[in-house]
Amino acid sequence: MTQLEIAREGRISPAMEAAAANEGVPAEQVRQGIADGTVVLPANRNHRSLRPTAIGAGLRIKVNANIGTSAVDPSGEQAMARLRAALEAGADAVMDLSTAGDLDEIRRQVIAASRVPVGTVPIYGASVEAQARGGVTAMTEDDLFDVIRKHAEDGVDFITVHCGVTQETSKLALDGGRITGVVSRGGAFTICWMRDHGRENPLYARFDDLLGICREHDVTLSLGDGLRAGCLADGSDRAQFAETAVLGELVLRAREAGVQAMVEGPGHLPLDQVVANVVMEKRLCHGAPFYQLGPLVTDIAPGYDHIVGAIGGALAGMAGTDFLCYLTPAEHLGLPTAEEVREGVIAARIAAHAADIVRLGPRARAWDDKMARARAGLDWEGQFRLAIDPERARSRHQPGGEEGATCSMCGPYCVFALLGKSTASRS
Amino acid sequence: MTQLEIAREGRISPAMEAAAANEGVPAEQVRQGIADGTVVLPANRNHRSLRPTAIGAGLRIKVNANIGTSAVDPSGEQAMARLRAALEAGADAVMDLSTAGDLDEIRRQVIAASRVPVGTVPIYGASVEAQARGGVTAMTEDDLFDVIRKHAEDGVDFITVHCGVTQETSKLALDGGRITGVVSRGGAFTICWMRDHGRENPLYARFDDLLGICREHDVTLSLGDGLRAGCLADGSDRAQFAETAVLGELVLRAREAGVQAMVEGPGHLPLDQVVANVVMEKRLCHGAPFYQLGPLVTDIAPGYDHIVGAIGGALAGMAGTDFLCYLTPAEHLGLPTAEEVREGVIAARIAAHAADIVRLGPRARAWDDKMARARAGLDWEGQFRLAIDPERARSRHQPGGEEGATCSMCGPYCVFALLGKSTASRS
Repeated sequence: MTQLEIAREGRISPAMEAAAANEGVPAEQVRQGIADGTVVLPANRNHRSLRPTAIGAGLRIKVNANIGTSAVDPSGEQAMARLRAALEAGADAVMDLSTAGDLDEIRRQVIAASRVPVGTVPIYGASVEAQARGGVTAMTEDDLFDVIRKHAEDGVDFITVHCGVTQETSKLALDGGRITGVVSRGGAFTICWMRDHGRENPLYARFDDLLGICREHDVTLSLGDGLRAGCLADGSDRAQFAETAVLGELVLRAREAGVQAMVEGPGHLPLDQVVANVVMEKRLCHGAPFYQLGPLVTDIAPGYDHIVGAIGGALAGMAGTDFLCYLTPAEHLGLPTAEEVREGVIAARIAAHAADIVRLGPRARAWDDKMARARAGLDWEGQFRLAIDPERARSRHQPGGEEGATCSMCGPYCVFALLGKSTASRS
Repeated sequence: MTQLEIAREGRISPAMEAAAANEGVPAEQVRQGIADGTVVLPANRNHRSLRPTAIGAGLRIKVNANIGTSAVDPSGEQAMARLRAALEAGADAVMDLSTAGDLDEIRRQVIAASRVPVGTVPIYGASVEAQARGGVTAMTEDDLFDVIRKHAEDGVDFITVHCGVTQETSKLALDGGRITGVVSRGGAFTICWMRDHGRENPLYARFDDLLGICREHDVTLSLGDGLRAGCLADGSDRAQFAETAVLGELVLRAREAGVQAMVEGPGHLPLDQVVANVVMEKRLCHGAPFYQLGPLVTDIAPGYDHIVGAIGGALAGMAGTDFLCYLTPAEHLGLPTAEEVREGVIAARIAAHAADIVRLGPRARAWDDKMARARAGLDWEGQFRLAIDPERARSRHQPGGEEGATCSMCGPYCVFALLGKSTASRS
């Protein structure tokens, strides 16, 4: 039985128990959320090392880091270095998006090394294998389902499937009204395949087959936003909402089949469309957990897209987004280094936490209050320990004032030195 | 006559003309805004090198960078390096917050080297000079006004004055209800002075004297938020709003005296209080331009406060904040290096632009649309040229795909290569 089926029977599984404990909420809350479909617990039976993590309404926002290889850097070793960087920086989930090297071997290593849920985009592997046979579309429907089955058997906890990229919805994205057309790699593979084969997207046409595989291994569906906007100008257009509406239908079909589902969302959006997109997703997709990339609220900052994404992600998170995919400083420029992976995870965690303070109230803000007390007390060790990146905070601190009690910004004129620690009256 | 007096007479000054041209708006719009008090044009008659810049409603959000010396790093040379870094990164204004070294000399050098408006906090200089005579409060009222007059004569365009830190309002901030008490340096100096002298804040008690100096040199008042919250827990409390209410009174008195005024705001605020603070400032302070530090939407990220501030700043800017003070990665840890100044300016400019896209519509978004077209066309030189930090984008790009046409993230599987450039149909 899947976590969804267990939850619907009113039973609390060990995975629900563990996920609730990690989160500091009652297990019954997690069970109810899973039963309602507003929470997912991606936990493939075959992912032995997994520490269960729940994603959705009423819970801490989770952060995903994309890692993996590409043609320029096919080394599994480098991919594992990025994985370690992501995990050390506190990523709640990782996606192996490898498109070069020994894909099966890398995926198995990533799963074995990850206590966090692992996601993949099976059409990447299927298309890359097809490329070796003459072209990315030299893939049969069965090839694609075989890859999905392989991922499921390997222990992948959630898979991105661009089921909403149909012949009908993709036309809307390619009708000439967009500047950047389709920017999802999975979406683009799917469109190329539909063009060359003159057939409907198999992940839509044979959705029940997909559900069968997912149910068997309890793989959570992450219904991909293959038609997300790739720039502000294209944000929130007809194609995007047409796809979301299809995904909403599929959420209901997944739930009926006992398969957990979340929904992915854009992408590039002006700041004033961020909240609307969350509201619409929650409405059209029946409260399914919302997994957003970014959103990026300006297009002009390559080299700083982790900051751009943190702005959008914090606002989205406050409005209800449950899962943030990080962006690194390398976005739009290249594959990230391990250090850039770290920067990206921290930026996304900052956005998630800023939103959690609103979503969860004192449960989340207790961390900030502790930091505030450490600051008011000029307790530097406490500040470093509490920092989201203790190493960075410690290495960057430059002492100032008498006996280095303050920092070099104000030196002897530190407010806490001037007014005395008595202002820190709450303890 | 001050810019405000000229604007009220219905006349457009050369400074208004220049500021409007820089902004791409009609000069009459700038004149009307200044006359209404919703726009300020900080332009001291004695700042010869100034390229006039207007700040306020209907205009691009401006970014300020704090630079200057501190006891640990009193070198004027280092302060000038930080100034150059700020200007090269595109700061719209700078504040010289020096508290060590030859304060007069550094200030004059900063003004001479800056085509952007220059601000100061005169009580810093007055308190530091007093410290040399035995303590920061060994300052007479006349000493303080002498320093203000000196700054005005030197050509300082705007000064932060913590006039709202009164005996009454400061009591509210120090009543024990806050974790971090008072975190504004100017606020703390003022409170120490009031305590030691048993007298009212001279900048409040003798506000008319202050107005006299400002009117003579057309120095814009930046009414400081000396009681801003220093942590999320203290945000939006009674002390903060009591101070803002006093500043609102003073805005009206400044306008009556022909002196331009803007108002400073917090600081540390949970994400869901950001918009409320902008709305309240605009209401209580009669539409005066709002100048915000951050706001910082979490306390737990020392080393990354430029990102935390960008999140708060973007949301505040969308809600109406007109002027953002940057934060650097060194905030809460030490004086920033020149490189950290650069990072801080870029992060604040990203926030400002993301908000401007909403505030100003197509006028601001045209930049993003150009970038989107360059991306869709795989025009890398165009992307670098359009990037907010061209050097960073260029140096970070790692080519991929055939003949390096794409980047190393997707390599041959770049969506624009897969689907062809035909998707970039709008030009």
